[in-house]
Amino acid sequence: MRILIAGVDGYLGWPLAQHLATRGHFVGGVDVLLRRECVAEVGGQSAIPISPIDERLEAYSEHFGQPMPFWQVNLLDYTALFKVLSEFKPEAVVHLAEIPSAPYSMIDAEHAAFTQHNNVIGSLNLLWAIKQVCPDAHLVKLGTMGEYGTPNVDIPEGFFEIEYRGRRDVLPFPKQAGSFYHWSKVHDSNNTMFACRVWGLRASDIMQGVVFGTQIEAGATEPRFRTRLDFDQCFGTVVNRFCAQAVIGHPLTVFGTGGQKRAFLPLRDSISCLTLVIENPPSCGEYRVINQFDECFTVFQIAELVRDAGERLGLKVTVDYYDNPREELEHHHYSPERKKLDALGYVPSGQIRDELVLMLKDLLPFQHRIATKQELLVPDIRWNGTRRRSAVMNTIGDQLS
Amino acid sequence: MRILIAGVDGYLGWPLAQHLATRGHFVGGVDVLLRRECVAEVGGQSAIPISPIDERLEAYSEHFGQPMPFWQVNLLDYTALFKVLSEFKPEAVVHLAEIPSAPYSMIDAEHAAFTQHNNVIGSLNLLWAIKQVCPDAHLVKLGTMGEYGTPNVDIPEGFFEIEYRGRRDVLPFPKQAGSFYHWSKVHDSNNTMFACRVWGLRASDIMQGVVFGTQIEAGATEPRFRTRLDFDQCFGTVVNRFCAQAVIGHPLTVFGTGGQKRAFLPLRDSISCLTLVIENPPSCGEYRVINQFDECFTVFQIAELVRDAGERLGLKVTVDYYDNPREELEHHHYSPERKKLDALGYVPSGQIRDELVLMLKDLLPFQHRIATKQELLVPDIRWNGTRRRSAVMNTIGDQLS
Repeated sequence: MRILIAGVDGYLGWPLAQHLATRGHFVGGVDVLLRRECVAEVGGQSAIPISPIDERLEAYSEHFGQPMPFWQVNLLDYTALFKVLSEFKPEAVVHLAEIPSAPYSMIDAEHAAFTQHNNVIGSLNLLWAIKQVCPDAHLVKLGTMGEYGTPNVDIPEGFFEIEYRGRRDVLPFPKQAGSFYHWSKVHDSNNTMFACRVWGLRASDIMQGVVFGTQIEAGATEPRFRTRLDFDQCFGTVVNRFCAQAVIGHPLTVFGTGGQKRAFLPLRDSISCLTLVIENPPSCGEYRVINQFDECFTVFQIAELVRDAGERLGLKVTVDYYDNPREELEHHHYSPERKKLDALGYVPSGQIRDELVLMLKDLLPFQHRIATKQELLVPDIRWNGTRRRSAVMNTIGDQLS
Repeated sequence: MRILIAGVDGYLGWPLAQHLATRGHFVGGVDVLLRRECVAEVGGQSAIPISPIDERLEAYSEHFGQPMPFWQVNLLDYTALFKVLSEFKPEAVVHLAEIPSAPYSMIDAEHAAFTQHNNVIGSLNLLWAIKQVCPDAHLVKLGTMGEYGTPNVDIPEGFFEIEYRGRRDVLPFPKQAGSFYHWSKVHDSNNTMFACRVWGLRASDIMQGVVFGTQIEAGATEPRFRTRLDFDQCFGTVVNRFCAQAVIGHPLTVFGTGGQKRAFLPLRDSISCLTLVIENPPSCGEYRVINQFDECFTVFQIAELVRDAGERLGLKVTVDYYDNPREELEHHHYSPERKKLDALGYVPSGQIRDELVLMLKDLLPFQHRIATKQELLVPDIRWNGTRRRSAVMNTIGDQLS
């Protein structure tokens, strides 16, 4: 299949390209390298060193025996994007080219606007370009489980049938996101749903849980094939941050009581799920919402799991409770449905403990790269628009959750 | 009360400023005059001639005995916007500064992106500026009944309590908008809901029906106080277009069977409702969604009402059915709730027939301004992204609706 990955230089994009190539697909890539810029802007760096894009593409070409067509193009540039699609003629477009950080979007007006502009208008341009150039192509768009928020009812996959005042309808499940970033993803989902309805595009909208991990295949040691692993407050997701903290002996930074429950999945599951979705497209006009995750845990449980994994490697891991810089419920119902991926053949790896041990092993050689950026481990971006570093609280943690 | 109107030069903004001043409020205005530009871009003009902004402000100053502080500022310019709020120190901010056209947003990728960028980022900037400068100010934001679409259940005011799989919650009512413009308003509503939750802002989000009319007070004849009346396919709402067509003997352009049901209200009701909302602010942190309309009609019924009104003035009005350039249901359930405005004291004028006669009378002196732009009366912007002028169909119309 001819598959174009927008955001091919990112945490998911780069391993996905490799996995798809291994399965015999012809992959093209688009990226404006914004993630590298944004991480640098907040003072971060990938714990695992990554190669510049040209070296990555060189490695790809050597390993897979054919080059990956690559365009350094911003989705905000409609003319350039139109040209890319016209040249590559994709059968599937995987859209991973969004700014993926909640705290970054909450820094100030400028960062909120930058995030929503980049994500909403970039995605809107992609919808129009697909419609104009390759309306049969399957759009695989990355949303987030965070779009749903934490409602007091179970979370279906995108739509739910309800009865209200004696009448019935199948409606989009209401979204209650928790940051301007998460809302930008909701806006994108809404625009995508509309484009499918009005133009007959076909799209899979992946509501993905929090991804963690360093590898998609054990033993992949070629450095140019490694993907990034961020640990700063903006671009490090919670498990990745905890593992980076664990390998340098920094207390794990649980926000509040750690009772926040979220859906998680290892990087290897994310890549295999995306592949399943790509290889099983919906029919034209279908807007297919897929909840993509392996297991649900509270942040407290994640901290415990990282502590256990650390102990298996002889690391002493401590946990501290920090005043929560975010506005979020710390105790809530959380029960998302996952049926569509299972129907496509997804078997969750369910090996979070093993995965965490592998991550810690992968991170140990790069302790120094984390240690030199220690100040990034405790958050200071607060949801009320101010900056103040979180302090350790005298909380025992959420033992019951 | 110190009330800042963003979009003070628009169809609603200008009469609202006058009405609020009459009631003793101190009004400031912001506008970048974009509406005038956009209408000119699509070849349109206001049927009723309007004055340039400086003449409007001059008339205002003369009539009310004090000037209206005015800033020609784009909400996309955060620094300038911040300065406006800092200088004016509003107690209420009425946000009418959005591009209000569904067809305009469906022209092509550029117009879709321009509409969503302008509306979403402008509104986002306004939220941040209020939070930073005057967090107690009451934001009165104009949404649209079009955000809800046409679900098969009744439409509550913003939120609904549901039972789903044995659990209960009060959730935002799902939105199913019908154009990239309408979705931009949904995106704004979502961002506003979030800002209230996370920052404790107070906002009234007005889901307004289709407004029609030329006057807020019978006999207001000073030309500089007149508001605009657009009749082109982009900026003319359906009743206004029908009245403009009626006065020059052009058949009323019903799209499809005309069975589309919508909520309507006269301009005078819109202004008095907005005033009620402004003068009765919600408490801090409250995100109050208000459905604002007078009556529901099908487009077919509207055409019949305009024909009747025309007959009362001796005008021969005919109705033609055109192939529908939009993607929308032509037969559907439609039952929106309106309780909050009634609780605030709103008494619907319910005088649509009288209002239509008044409109036709106001438009008759300007027949030539409509007749010279006749080519704008039949739409050619289609929801599938192409341009093709709609043709008359052999449909008898929706006699039963």
